[in-house]
Amino acid sequence: MSELFERHRARLDKAIDACEKRYSWTAFTESPSSKVHGKDIPAAARVAFDALLGEPFDIDMPATIGSVGEEVSPFTEAPLGITYPRVDVDTLFEAAKRAQASWCLQSTEERVGLCLEMLDRLARPESLFLNAHTTVHTAGQSFIMAFAGCGANALDRGLEALAYAYRAMQDVPETAHWERRFGATAETHLEKRYRLIPRGTSVVITCATFPQWNGYPAIFASLSTGNPVIVKPHPRTTLPVALFVRTMREVLAEYGHDPNLVTMAADTRDDPVTIELLHHPDTAIIDFTGGPQFGQWIEENCTNALVYTETAGCNSVVIESTDDFSGMCDAIAHSLCQASAQMCTSVQNIFIPRSGIDTGAGHLTLDEVCDGLVASVDKLIAEPRKAAFLCGTLVDENIYKTIDTLTVAGAESGHVLRESTPYEHPEFENARTATPLMLRVEAADKDLYGKEHFGPISFVIASDDADHALKRATEDVRDHGAITSHVYSADEQFLERAEHAYHMAGASLACNLVGMPINFAAAYSDYHVTGLNPAGNACLTDLAFVTNRFRIVQTKFRTAATTG
Amino acid sequence: MSELFERHRARLDKAIDACEKRYSWTAFTESPSSKVHGKDIPAAARVAFDALLGEPFDIDMPATIGSVGEEVSPFTEAPLGITYPRVDVDTLFEAAKRAQASWCLQSTEERVGLCLEMLDRLARPESLFLNAHTTVHTAGQSFIMAFAGCGANALDRGLEALAYAYRAMQDVPETAHWERRFGATAETHLEKRYRLIPRGTSVVITCATFPQWNGYPAIFASLSTGNPVIVKPHPRTTLPVALFVRTMREVLAEYGHDPNLVTMAADTRDDPVTIELLHHPDTAIIDFTGGPQFGQWIEENCTNALVYTETAGCNSVVIESTDDFSGMCDAIAHSLCQASAQMCTSVQNIFIPRSGIDTGAGHLTLDEVCDGLVASVDKLIAEPRKAAFLCGTLVDENIYKTIDTLTVAGAESGHVLRESTPYEHPEFENARTATPLMLRVEAADKDLYGKEHFGPISFVIASDDADHALKRATEDVRDHGAITSHVYSADEQFLERAEHAYHMAGASLACNLVGMPINFAAAYSDYHVTGLNPAGNACLTDLAFVTNRFRIVQTKFRTAATTG
Repeated sequence: MSELFERHRARLDKAIDACEKRYSWTAFTESPSSKVHGKDIPAAARVAFDALLGEPFDIDMPATIGSVGEEVSPFTEAPLGITYPRVDVDTLFEAAKRAQASWCLQSTEERVGLCLEMLDRLARPESLFLNAHTTVHTAGQSFIMAFAGCGANALDRGLEALAYAYRAMQDVPETAHWERRFGATAETHLEKRYRLIPRGTSVVITCATFPQWNGYPAIFASLSTGNPVIVKPHPRTTLPVALFVRTMREVLAEYGHDPNLVTMAADTRDDPVTIELLHHPDTAIIDFTGGPQFGQWIEENCTNALVYTETAGCNSVVIESTDDFSGMCDAIAHSLCQASAQMCTSVQNIFIPRSGIDTGAGHLTLDEVCDGLVASVDKLIAEPRKAAFLCGTLVDENIYKTIDTLTVAGAESGHVLRESTPYEHPEFENARTATPLMLRVEAADKDLYGKEHFGPISFVIASDDADHALKRATEDVRDHGAITSHVYSADEQFLERAEHAYHMAGASLACNLVGMPINFAAAYSDYHVTGLNPAGNACLTDLAFVTNRFRIVQTKFRTAATTG
Repeated sequence: MSELFERHRARLDKAIDACEKRYSWTAFTESPSSKVHGKDIPAAARVAFDALLGEPFDIDMPATIGSVGEEVSPFTEAPLGITYPRVDVDTLFEAAKRAQASWCLQSTEERVGLCLEMLDRLARPESLFLNAHTTVHTAGQSFIMAFAGCGANALDRGLEALAYAYRAMQDVPETAHWERRFGATAETHLEKRYRLIPRGTSVVITCATFPQWNGYPAIFASLSTGNPVIVKPHPRTTLPVALFVRTMREVLAEYGHDPNLVTMAADTRDDPVTIELLHHPDTAIIDFTGGPQFGQWIEENCTNALVYTETAGCNSVVIESTDDFSGMCDAIAHSLCQASAQMCTSVQNIFIPRSGIDTGAGHLTLDEVCDGLVASVDKLIAEPRKAAFLCGTLVDENIYKTIDTLTVAGAESGHVLRESTPYEHPEFENARTATPLMLRVEAADKDLYGKEHFGPISFVIASDDADHALKRATEDVRDHGAITSHVYSADEQFLERAEHAYHMAGASLACNLVGMPINFAAAYSDYHVTGLNPAGNACLTDLAFVTNRFRIVQTKFRTAATTG
């Protein structure tokens, strides 16, 4: 039995139990508080981060033929000046293939044990703090979001995928005894051995905003089942990926395995390697997180490999009524602000009956509901320190253009409820910031709201009534996808209709959430992405996410016990 | 809890246990012996079969726009004269979609219970006997093979798939309680409900030879997970499919469900509906059994759906040495004869060292080994009654052309070890029979043996030595696929090398099998098709075969217990 597996077994067992019962649990530390970590580790991580700037990233990568690097901090607008190995794709795949040869002969426990050790290393405070700094200055998140969301929360999703992979592999026994009589012949006794064989090289394409949250599940699902992994980071957010790839390679090498089981193919926006990776004849598995258009292209064109996508959709809220108007407004406003609505769970389209809604405090007109939502947003970001904490920055400077274009278009079709302006960041004067743009439009303005607008852009959509709102919102799920959907209603019958309508459209639903960050998707509990609508074809994480990453071969032979 | 589920629960539980431990078990009756069934039921089934001939098949099918039917008995060469509804594809899909709407709202136990009841009906003696007659006079199997192989053995594979589907669905809990504190807020309590949603309409394409064996697993995997199923039978072998589809529809209707959950789209070879079914926008799942070329086309072109294929490959035997020469020759000969080598597990390519092999009774030259194999074949089919029992008939009259062509080509490249001639069927004078054609060629003659030749055609391939044989055989696995592979060797080290080589090529291996029908693939024990080589992308049956046929949606909501 693998030493590392034994060392981390309790954590794995707990994760398996959590997946089964789906309660709230984290294996890792979400808080960056100095009460937890002291002051030395955070300070050292800050120094370690500064030391990375302007230098070639210290990572040994096979097939290196040059260097690339074009990251710019969304907080300082200054280039990070860090370069990464540029690789020759064919040579990289050869290295991956060589690494697979011995890896796939290891026991399940050995492979899973190594993955558990990687998670443990990545979860050490010094790693979490450095990971957070790298995420801040690439993905543009606030430090607290980068620390928890791209730290513990992402590691939990990785552990969750590993737990599922382990269970799927455990489902296949190692041996069996089989005996029967065929017709008049003597009893036949067979021994059978079953062995798990990986699919082959796994290409994981991570996104600019949350490379760890989607990357870890894909990497651990593939690696634990025997497949070598090539990670293709987004050119804007390569540093956090380089950091975790380096840690994974270190763990592999330390325990005598080929570090080329995990490699990275960094590129630039002008000269991407993505298509070359996707279409490489050795590519057997593709995990993609990113835009819906490219995701769909992969689903339709990469028939050479298993394809798992998580993209984005038109996440909606349908408001029918509420017992807690201010709680509801605060909850929705939080989603519009958090990480500048660049999360795959951020709300975009808010459907409200034109005649307004009933609340615990009486009927409110549509205008009054809009006022409430805007007021909640204004309140959340009134203080620059809180705005910075909640919104972070824009990962992509092009979002400003989208905001400008939609401000004009929104004013033409409907009107601007709230203009987007930069907020003043208390720490970084050049920070690329934007507060939520909120537009009020009609249900007929589908051209405007009927697709994902990446960034802090939302629509209040005046609908004929609540059922019309529901109809329109679920049509959007079918046409454009959804990762999260919300309904607010004090009417049990409407909630039932809403649940049915969203479920039949292939979407999950959250009802009347208040008093918590509604964008939050919980590892071990929330099945993330249904796979039933255009926002992705795979779920993080369920059995289907892992069961096909390996296959089963067997050997059968007669035993001495057989009488001839 | 579903009444039917409770009634059949013990059988399901036993199947789940058998899948887990992979011992030998059957839930059904393999023997057609009158000692088991008496004489009345077999006689009545015979009468029932005769009554089918020359009539429109009595089945109510939605979207009927005419009739089709072109089956010819391989035993009598006479048309069966049976016609089946020809359907309008769009209208059929609409009916399937309507049926799904209520089916997917049923509990898992209700759906699985219905499937268990279908299996039970199909396993009744009157069904098994009638099923066997229909299989004999379409697929061309001998009665004994049709009774067991297309009866109990196929039902076992269906039950096996159902067991996996049930376990996969059971893996998702119905509800969960979730609570945590976000920062300084009060504790949040959420209740979560998880619901399984089917992918959508499932198209199952069955083959001419064993429509039940591959059809049942696909149908029960899809149907139990909520998907309506459209079965597209091969035009040569529509009758057995029509029979089981009718039984399934009867069970559904009897228990108040929409019979259009299982429908059939019969066609003709000149006017096939297959492509229209595959590319229909509602098609969400495709199960295909048939030729490798079309299977590959589906894998590459049907990106609109999940695709599960089982096709065929160049099944090989590598002979290095043996302790039991006559046992080995008999075992291989049995594979060359059984069902006229029209099984997906039939052996085609027999690699033997040019210098011969060591046996328990001393060294034998290659010629002597060839003689032994031919003698075993001759012995097995010497008596017409035994030949009929073992070989049955050819499902496709075109196989005669292949035999003729290869006899000429084989004589040019190497030589003919054994000519194929019809054997005289003791019961049917027009029976379409052929004994095994055996050719001896060189390893270099890959043009000849390096692809599947459907029918009783095999090659003894002279190789430089046993390791060369292994190399060539496993290259064929990679290039052309394999469903079964055999090695005979008394050398433990060679067996180890063979196991490694076949496994790394993505094939399972049987070692030194004698005294049993080596084509036999056991439900609950043998993972059939690895999915790692061109002979198919899916395994019958494992978790991967079922986990993606449904998806998971959820609803979360705050509970009263929540303190705000």
